[in-house]
Amino acid sequence: MTDAVEQLPLLEAALDAASLAYKKQSQIVANLRAGNNNRNRTDQLQKEETNLRDCKRQVDAAKRALQAAAPETNSDTQAKNVAAAVEGLLRRRFFIAPSFEIYGGVKGLYDYGPPGCAVKNNLLAVWRQHFIVEEGMLELEATCLTPAPVLKASGHVDKFNDLMVEDVETSDAYRADHLLGEHLENLLQQHPQHEHKDEMQHLLATIDELDQKQMDVYLRKYEVTAPDTGNAVTKCYPFNLMFQTSIGPSATQPAYLRPETAQGIFVNFKRLLESVGGKLPFACAQIGLSFRNEIAPKGGLLRVREFQQAEIEHFVNPEDKSHAKFAQVRDVTINMFGREQQLHRPYKPVSITVGEAVEKGFIDNETLGYFIGRTSMFVEQVGMNMKFVRFRQHLEHEMAHYASDCWDLEIMSLSNNKWVECAGLADRSAYDLGNHSEKSGSELRARVNYAEPKRVEEVVCVANKGTLGRQFKRDAQGIIKQLSAMDEEEVKTLKQQLETGECKAQVSGFDIGPEHVSFRKESKMVSGKSLYPSVIEPSFGVGRILWCLWEHCYYVREGEDEADAQTVRRVLALPGCVAPVKCCVLPLSKNVVFESLLAEVRQKLSAAGLVNRVDDSGTSIGKRYARADEMGTPLGITVDFESVKDGSVTVRERDSTAQIRCASVADAVDVVRRLVAGETAWSDVLASYGNFRA
Amino acid sequence: MTDAVEQLPLLEAALDAASLAYKKQSQIVANLRAGNNNRNRTDQLQKEETNLRDCKRQVDAAKRALQAAAPETNSDTQAKNVAAAVEGLLRRRFFIAPSFEIYGGVKGLYDYGPPGCAVKNNLLAVWRQHFIVEEGMLELEATCLTPAPVLKASGHVDKFNDLMVEDVETSDAYRADHLLGEHLENLLQQHPQHEHKDEMQHLLATIDELDQKQMDVYLRKYEVTAPDTGNAVTKCYPFNLMFQTSIGPSATQPAYLRPETAQGIFVNFKRLLESVGGKLPFACAQIGLSFRNEIAPKGGLLRVREFQQAEIEHFVNPEDKSHAKFAQVRDVTINMFGREQQLHRPYKPVSITVGEAVEKGFIDNETLGYFIGRTSMFVEQVGMNMKFVRFRQHLEHEMAHYASDCWDLEIMSLSNNKWVECAGLADRSAYDLGNHSEKSGSELRARVNYAEPKRVEEVVCVANKGTLGRQFKRDAQGIIKQLSAMDEEEVKTLKQQLETGECKAQVSGFDIGPEHVSFRKESKMVSGKSLYPSVIEPSFGVGRILWCLWEHCYYVREGEDEADAQTVRRVLALPGCVAPVKCCVLPLSKNVVFESLLAEVRQKLSAAGLVNRVDDSGTSIGKRYARADEMGTPLGITVDFESVKDGSVTVRERDSTAQIRCASVADAVDVVRRLVAGETAWSDVLASYGNFRA
Repeated sequence: MTDAVEQLPLLEAALDAASLAYKKQSQIVANLRAGNNNRNRTDQLQKEETNLRDCKRQVDAAKRALQAAAPETNSDTQAKNVAAAVEGLLRRRFFIAPSFEIYGGVKGLYDYGPPGCAVKNNLLAVWRQHFIVEEGMLELEATCLTPAPVLKASGHVDKFNDLMVEDVETSDAYRADHLLGEHLENLLQQHPQHEHKDEMQHLLATIDELDQKQMDVYLRKYEVTAPDTGNAVTKCYPFNLMFQTSIGPSATQPAYLRPETAQGIFVNFKRLLESVGGKLPFACAQIGLSFRNEIAPKGGLLRVREFQQAEIEHFVNPEDKSHAKFAQVRDVTINMFGREQQLHRPYKPVSITVGEAVEKGFIDNETLGYFIGRTSMFVEQVGMNMKFVRFRQHLEHEMAHYASDCWDLEIMSLSNNKWVECAGLADRSAYDLGNHSEKSGSELRARVNYAEPKRVEEVVCVANKGTLGRQFKRDAQGIIKQLSAMDEEEVKTLKQQLETGECKAQVSGFDIGPEHVSFRKESKMVSGKSLYPSVIEPSFGVGRILWCLWEHCYYVREGEDEADAQTVRRVLALPGCVAPVKCCVLPLSKNVVFESLLAEVRQKLSAAGLVNRVDDSGTSIGKRYARADEMGTPLGITVDFESVKDGSVTVRERDSTAQIRCASVADAVDVVRRLVAGETAWSDVLASYGNFRA
Repeated sequence: MTDAVEQLPLLEAALDAASLAYKKQSQIVANLRAGNNNRNRTDQLQKEETNLRDCKRQVDAAKRALQAAAPETNSDTQAKNVAAAVEGLLRRRFFIAPSFEIYGGVKGLYDYGPPGCAVKNNLLAVWRQHFIVEEGMLELEATCLTPAPVLKASGHVDKFNDLMVEDVETSDAYRADHLLGEHLENLLQQHPQHEHKDEMQHLLATIDELDQKQMDVYLRKYEVTAPDTGNAVTKCYPFNLMFQTSIGPSATQPAYLRPETAQGIFVNFKRLLESVGGKLPFACAQIGLSFRNEIAPKGGLLRVREFQQAEIEHFVNPEDKSHAKFAQVRDVTINMFGREQQLHRPYKPVSITVGEAVEKGFIDNETLGYFIGRTSMFVEQVGMNMKFVRFRQHLEHEMAHYASDCWDLEIMSLSNNKWVECAGLADRSAYDLGNHSEKSGSELRARVNYAEPKRVEEVVCVANKGTLGRQFKRDAQGIIKQLSAMDEEEVKTLKQQLETGECKAQVSGFDIGPEHVSFRKESKMVSGKSLYPSVIEPSFGVGRILWCLWEHCYYVREGEDEADAQTVRRVLALPGCVAPVKCCVLPLSKNVVFESLLAEVRQKLSAAGLVNRVDDSGTSIGKRYARADEMGTPLGITVDFESVKDGSVTVRERDSTAQIRCASVADAVDVVRRLVAGETAWSDVLASYGNFRA
């Protein structure tokens, strides 16, 4: 260890050098992209992008070496304790449970039990109010069943794959990257001075960038076998993660369960644009299920096969990505883990306002910044520990070639001691709409008006009616119509094709030559133009957010011995807005005299829309409060003998365990309502009613 | 026609006679069922049930003959007008649209656009408040992906079929019952005096009761061909309506998309029972998607392939189906179309209170009655025209053999001129839990305590340790343990098996004979017993309810010419609780002076959770109001030049088109909030503010 520590300055310097090289290469790629008008990449650009990925591998390897020498202080034991405690609590109180458990269960499928389902619905209600209602967004709900051609167009049929191998004898399947990674880690642990040590470390840092061929090479080279049997494994092959089925009785209409909700918004773009009177910008959200046939689902909700997404597609003029309500997030402070922070000492996020981040160009534009700010406000409102929340920018090589900027909302999963991607906020430019437009043949452009009409020089196409008529006879009319309806872009393309002669130009399905058309420049006044809007997409993984939220809200009351599983008092400090039960209702004992008051409390709470539960199970009040604390119930109303005499009841708050006395049930219910709605704070209530001790 | 009308008394008498015969046979079946303790039916019972179905065929044939002679007054032309108007409106304003329309669409799949999605979410929010929150129900969310063994156990893999035929040349698929029915109707129309006229009419009345063999016989006999091509069709075969897929990478885990949400509650019964401390009765609800690969989907939302259900499973002691809150529905009046009404003149529903219906035994028990009452309150609250709502009881032959009573919420679809089953309310007795218990090997009984301990005589099983030890050696211990753990039911079964010798008795997988055990009666005090709870299941089809609601709420303003599509003023009179937009916000003109006030109105409405839309499109106020009326927006706030001076604004109500003037934006927003929440009525607001004319 001492050796390693002495190496630290050297390793840090190595990382700095690698980071610098990466940043230089990023600039080269960025310049090339800026000068590239085509939607397809040039060979040169592709080459430089490959170089960029190589640079990133160096950065990762250097970072890994540094981490190995100076391990982080977070303890894995601690993480495992959290995992056991939280998962135990969640299962025992039926927040979640493996689906179909009485039939043996299915990996990667979880059911939400009553409290879990309630937290999820509450979280989505907050999300809907925060994003859809307050922003005046549209919302739609498309089907999960999706015919194959749509997902062929979006690229999912061809590219939504993981590399997989099988045990040659049992046919058990494994993810190739997981298998290789675990194998290399074991090997390194057993043989720290392995002859291929450097290559192995490099491989570990870059494993998710291996292609099928490379993966096979290393699986063979390191003699990877199936971990459960020791048998050899097959060559790896791409496994598509979509669930396949077919629609209709004749099984001739292949279909998939959607792997993301986004496509349902893109294919409806035309109708949505009509809904808003054709004006940009506008946004449409969708909350719904998506399905991915993961090869290796994880425990808990972090990687499952059926999951809920909440996605927003914000359509905006690519030439004006300002946001009208940006002022509302300008002062929101976020933990920003931008490219600079990821590539520079101390390689840690910085605290910055959204306003400053956009102004200084860390975040590409106001609209993206606006959604980052709103997202931060959202996770804070539902109760996330903001110390464990950060926004990480994608490095250049992580982004799709069409994206102009991309940030992940990352939340620390305390049980895994890992940052988890819980939402992605991407500027996807015009890619999706252009793609569906081309594949479906349906026009998905929007018209943008200039502030005032402009005079422009435009190349127009003039049909040579004579040559066309002679050659195409009665089809000529259609061709002429088509030619005159061409927009500027199409005219340019046709002109280029005819000039270079690189391919035959087709119009209305007929081959057109230079003899059929001429081009001339025209000067005219135009009030606007048609274009594919840019899409800014905040996309939330609901299950992952819930999982992290439960971990963040869990604590053990001070002075308790966590190891004593029987008596330890656990608390799930969920805010009122997401807590499954808003108020528990406790009679002092099982005495029948309390019944009519209990009924009144329940009726009044229910009528106010406050979910409540009576616990008259006969154990002590203390134990019943502890039970409610575990469920995250923020408030309790207790009915005692005094209540029977004068109608007064006690209200108790979960986190402080302090109590107040209200003169009537109606008053108590109103206090609970105001606290849950966030209209008032417990400290104010306590100040005005006074602390009550029974 | 005159001939037919003269026959009316004869036809009515025939129907009466058939109804009487049906009722007598019902009684025979009911008596047999009551004396039948087994979960399986005896041969005798099966025979009488077949007779019962025959009787019903006679009733239907008689009813059909009567209807043909005295056609109902509803006009099909009228229905078609409603269909065209409503569907046109729904598509044009993007309430719903065929999914993936730009790729050619898929039959039976619909997307909910922004207003449709909003109405659906609002309807579900009302449902959740009305049933789950106010009733203190549990709610869970299980997965759509369901492994095959679960649906094998529930019977869906084997029995969830429709009979299908294919065109022998094109392989196009048709539902056999639809094809035969349409063919017979055409034939009868062309040849009213066809030689098989009587048989054909009888077939039309009973077509959904034909089995595969009978169906083939009639398809051949009447030479049914494929309607699109005239080609011959194949023999019919059962087509399973579930979408199949497989889970995991090796495709060895066959699975289906669930065809109903109910199973997700049953398989979690044990955890749910734990959640409520083991006490009956309790209820659990689930709102979620279900999938059925319909052979012939209908237009609109009435029969689709992916749809939302809202189901409740209420678990109750089979010996006590009273309901604690029954008093709350006692006075609710419903249109009851019970067995009596369906089988007696004038064959029409009667208006009756739920209390009376239960008291007189029309509805089997209080709990079922309670849910019927609550369901009626629900559909009234969301805006259904109660004239077109009825509860129809299943006739004896329609119910599964295990069910003890079943009612459908039927709502008139004005566009189809047909009653549509929008919810089913069934007492399914102990069938589902018993079934899953048996197939999964997991105990799904609940313990019910007697009011006070009882002395009971019980047969107990005494293991003969000597004979068991000698024969089974070291396995004997396990067998003895198993024998002593048997409950009364199991002991009885074992005793019977050994006495009749009908089959070898198996314990722990070993063959047991009379020499291994003895039986004796014991008298003991017991405080309760274990049993399978009865399940009372209200199950709602969300899409169908929405479709009927839109039809019921649609009207054209009085004095308008419906035929004039351009100027006619259409209204969707959705109540505030379900309307997609609660309030439209209209500036008098596009003048910039209104902007800051508009922003204030929007901000205040949004903060109050009220979805709102500005319409500043520059057309007249009247046209913009008309546009909002079509969307079902109940209220509007208008900002004019007076507003700019003194901050006062106008509030306008959709149905009366009356207006009031509020002194401030805050006041106007509060009026809108109270109206939407149902805290106050428009008439009261109008009375206190006075009618305002601009």
